Amino acid sequence: MSAVRILVLGGGFGGVYAARFLENEFQPHEAEISLVNRENYFVFQPLLPEVISGSIGLTDTVAPIRRVCPRTRLYVRELESIDFAARKVVLAPGVRPRRLELPYDYLVLAAGSTTNLSGMSGLAEHALPFRTLGDALRLRNRVFQCMEEADTEPDPEFKRRLLTFVVGGGGFSGVEVIAEMNDFLRGSARHYHSIRPEDIQCVLVHSRDLILQEMDPALARYAQNLLARRGVVLKLGARVVAATADSVIIKRGDTTETIPARTLVSTVPSGAVPLVQSLDCKKDKGGRVVVNSFLEVEGHEGRVWAIGDCAAIKMSDGADAPPTAQHAIREGRTVARNVAAAARGGEKSAFLFPGLGKLGSLGHHSAVAEVFGVKISGFLAWLLWRTIYLGKMPGLDRKLRVGLDWFTALLFPGDLVGLRVQATDNITNEHFEPGEDIFRQGDVGDRLYVIRTGEVEVVRDGVPVTTLDHGNYFGEMALLANVPRNATVRAVKPTDVLAVAKGDFAKLLASFPEFAADLKDMASRRAR
Amino acid sequence: MSAVRILVLGGGFGGVYAARFLENEFQPHEAEISLVNRENYFVFQPLLPEVISGSIGLTDTVAPIRRVCPRTRLYVRELESIDFAARKVVLAPGVRPRRLELPYDYLVLAAGSTTNLSGMSGLAEHALPFRTLGDALRLRNRVFQCMEEADTEPDPEFKRRLLTFVVGGGGFSGVEVIAEMNDFLRGSARHYHSIRPEDIQCVLVHSRDLILQEMDPALARYAQNLLARRGVVLKLGARVVAATADSVIIKRGDTTETIPARTLVSTVPSGAVPLVQSLDCKKDKGGRVVVNSFLEVEGHEGRVWAIGDCAAIKMSDGADAPPTAQHAIREGRTVARNVAAAARGGEKSAFLFPGLGKLGSLGHHSAVAEVFGVKISGFLAWLLWRTIYLGKMPGLDRKLRVGLDWFTALLFPGDLVGLRVQATDNITNEHFEPGEDIFRQGDVGDRLYVIRTGEVEVVRDGVPVTTLDHGNYFGEMALLANVPRNATVRAVKPTDVLAVAKGDFAKLLASFPEFAADLKDMASRRAR
Repeated sequence: MSAVRILVLGGGFGGVYAARFLENEFQPHEAEISLVNRENYFVFQPLLPEVISGSIGLTDTVAPIRRVCPRTRLYVRELESIDFAARKVVLAPGVRPRRLELPYDYLVLAAGSTTNLSGMSGLAEHALPFRTLGDALRLRNRVFQCMEEADTEPDPEFKRRLLTFVVGGGGFSGVEVIAEMNDFLRGSARHYHSIRPEDIQCVLVHSRDLILQEMDPALARYAQNLLARRGVVLKLGARVVAATADSVIIKRGDTTETIPARTLVSTVPSGAVPLVQSLDCKKDKGGRVVVNSFLEVEGHEGRVWAIGDCAAIKMSDGADAPPTAQHAIREGRTVARNVAAAARGGEKSAFLFPGLGKLGSLGHHSAVAEVFGVKISGFLAWLLWRTIYLGKMPGLDRKLRVGLDWFTALLFPGDLVGLRVQATDNITNEHFEPGEDIFRQGDVGDRLYVIRTGEVEVVRDGVPVTTLDHGNYFGEMALLANVPRNATVRAVKPTDVLAVAKGDFAKLLASFPEFAADLKDMASRRAR
Repeated sequence: MSAVRILVLGGGFGGVYAARFLENEFQPHEAEISLVNRENYFVFQPLLPEVISGSIGLTDTVAPIRRVCPRTRLYVRELESIDFAARKVVLAPGVRPRRLELPYDYLVLAAGSTTNLSGMSGLAEHALPFRTLGDALRLRNRVFQCMEEADTEPDPEFKRRLLTFVVGGGGFSGVEVIAEMNDFLRGSARHYHSIRPEDIQCVLVHSRDLILQEMDPALARYAQNLLARRGVVLKLGARVVAATADSVIIKRGDTTETIPARTLVSTVPSGAVPLVQSLDCKKDKGGRVVVNSFLEVEGHEGRVWAIGDCAAIKMSDGADAPPTAQHAIREGRTVARNVAAAARGGEKSAFLFPGLGKLGSLGHHSAVAEVFGVKISGFLAWLLWRTIYLGKMPGLDRKLRVGLDWFTALLFPGDLVGLRVQATDNITNEHFEPGEDIFRQGDVGDRLYVIRTGEVEVVRDGVPVTTLDHGNYFGEMALLANVPRNATVRAVKPTDVLAVAKGDFAKLLASFPEFAADLKDMASRRAR
């Protein structure tokens, strides 16, 4: 028998453990196992919030895939398309502009889910997702940027805006993020001359009346009280409906409330990744692939399987399998057995994992846990939480390193190092709600704006001059002449703009003479 | 006496220690000390190369400024201008589009130096500098990206290109970077299925015949032999003169050599930062501010001082003070005393520090050192190197953490986690040498190009079709129609282009209808 080609798409817990179990099921000469992932590591989702405070080494929340499944061939590329009929997958170009085609005999879909922010106005532009190591680093940098700016900000109202942090979603992830951020901000305030603890506000917005709905209500209530005691503001029965650079709009019943805040983190989960949603097979309303009890995709039995967050998996009691690491790992094991059964013939295994327990960290050495029906809270639950995750980490070196990190973090306070690695020049989308200023007369001009949708008015010395809408651009004068803004521009409808930063604008001008001429023309017409 | 306002510009060793010593010289009510820096931390330059292999925690190569000088007011902003006459400094806007003006009574310039790449063609576009934590992270990511791509690259020639890493400059920094990178690459190769150690090439280009010219020749020769034994290729008496995305061009005497390599790191030092170079005071040819033995700036004695890499400081023996941490720290101490003398009256102190010794790490538990006239090499020198730097770190927590990192790194191999946090869409400048392909017929079209200088020819099916030069753009057809490149475009002169990535291109098209119309017009004309 020649080697069968097994392809795993996605490098989360599901995909990586599927590959690992496949390495056990097959001898090296029997199967060629490949895995496609955007990064060369997989993320320990539950530890990611610790990146914010730096209580764990930045790269210790992730593990190199090559170490966990050494026999698997890893492709660090984006997925471009999946062709069930031709049994092949196409990967996007890497350094060289060539696509890569991977044919397969057996396919395991483990591409995960996404945070879909596109439905609500301003969320795609201004909310920070919290899924990847990159997301966690970006949030950490945002927190530092806000603290540094707030420390030298003379306007108390804007200072408060800088120091208000909103998290949408009170599941495990949202609760862990708000707890960690709150502890860290309050702990660091003493290093800043003009930030007092009462200037800091951490807000958790949750759609139900009790957070952590997967948990026993008594434990959830315990967590809720603990967070409130530490100064977290809970907005329950409410949803985030819109966001701008300067505020978060939430809705509770028929009441709308605007929270002045520069930072919004959205942890509200959504469906499968777009590529999976577009596949030609049966899906649930979240776009997740429906599978049978053997994790096979309908119509492609014995050929294609789906596991993890991109699959709609039923447990033996009829409930949905939750999107947790413990379930993904067991799904990986089941799928490895079933691929082996398909390749060699043999009995298929049904997915019958009841779950071991539930754990949620609350920061500051406390947690809530339900293990084998026993409820635990406080420091003991936190120790349990740490021990379990430490045990799950692959490799003695990583266990040791994380253990030592935690040990030193118990003794010493969090770190204060911001980590800006991104370039500041770029082209971004921004959203403004009616009444919000896009810029003010007298401001330094640092970007050009193009209206995608909506309407703005231009106000000079308090007098409305004109209105602009779709396709119009503004703000070019200050950039061309390097003078302060000569008018205020304010949104009159919900408005989406494209913002081109000064640096990119200069590059564009230098390279597209026609474009530069057009703009200068328009600027001089407007100046008249 | 009302509090004097002392302003320190720059947060390297010089600036941070000046602020720290100023806190000792003045009572809190006597002086208001402020410091301006781009980041909220300062960098332990000599440890930065360890970020590449991850043998030290990513944030442990830096220390929070607020911890080291707690009484100093920190402004995390870019410097925009310095006005000696009006005694004020202007800071660039932060989150809000407002500049900040800081008046001062006494000013300490400690703004550091820069890696000037603009003189040589292609270096600004393609060489990676190595000064900041961001630079170190970018290099780490580049190393991983090249390894991941090389592992799945079928063309052996391109694979070798991906796995060739060139460092320009054989001073302490260059030697430490090449040593660390070489060790790490060779150590990690076994985790990659199709990378053999002999595919990896690390090249050090140095302008003299012996590296580490600050060191005793015997130690420098020891270092050189050690690197060669470990597989580093040394190109001595040579300089990097040009670079493209795919190759590095070096010149030795009259001979030019092209090294096929995707990665070039430049550690060749240059002058002071541009803002300091433009100041109205006496400077040396590197643009560094000339100071007297009290570190005072000529014409501004008792008012403005300059220290660290932005100053041309003579030692008592007439030699230039080298740009090392030990010197910067002592310059900080001298300047603090002299500011106090200026504020209160009193004796000024001359800078009279002879230097304690020289240390250079060679990776893999070896180093060279000259301390109090004694020459040491090998493991003992490495232990000394570690001990000294550990001692310099501020705070017990950081000392402990770095000590533990080093301990675990002795036991376990380097980590494999790439850390991509940057967005991939952007507008970049690129340089091509004559004969190089910008893209090839059949490639996937992933960007639009605009020619800034130079000339290219368009070749279809092996036949030259046309040439294009300054202001022309090309590559738009593949982006507009989402088809492969229908021709090869090749540089015929040294050519600089602006490259607009697909994502940004799409945003621009959607927002500037005129621009989109222009392009479509042109595309259809060309297609005919």
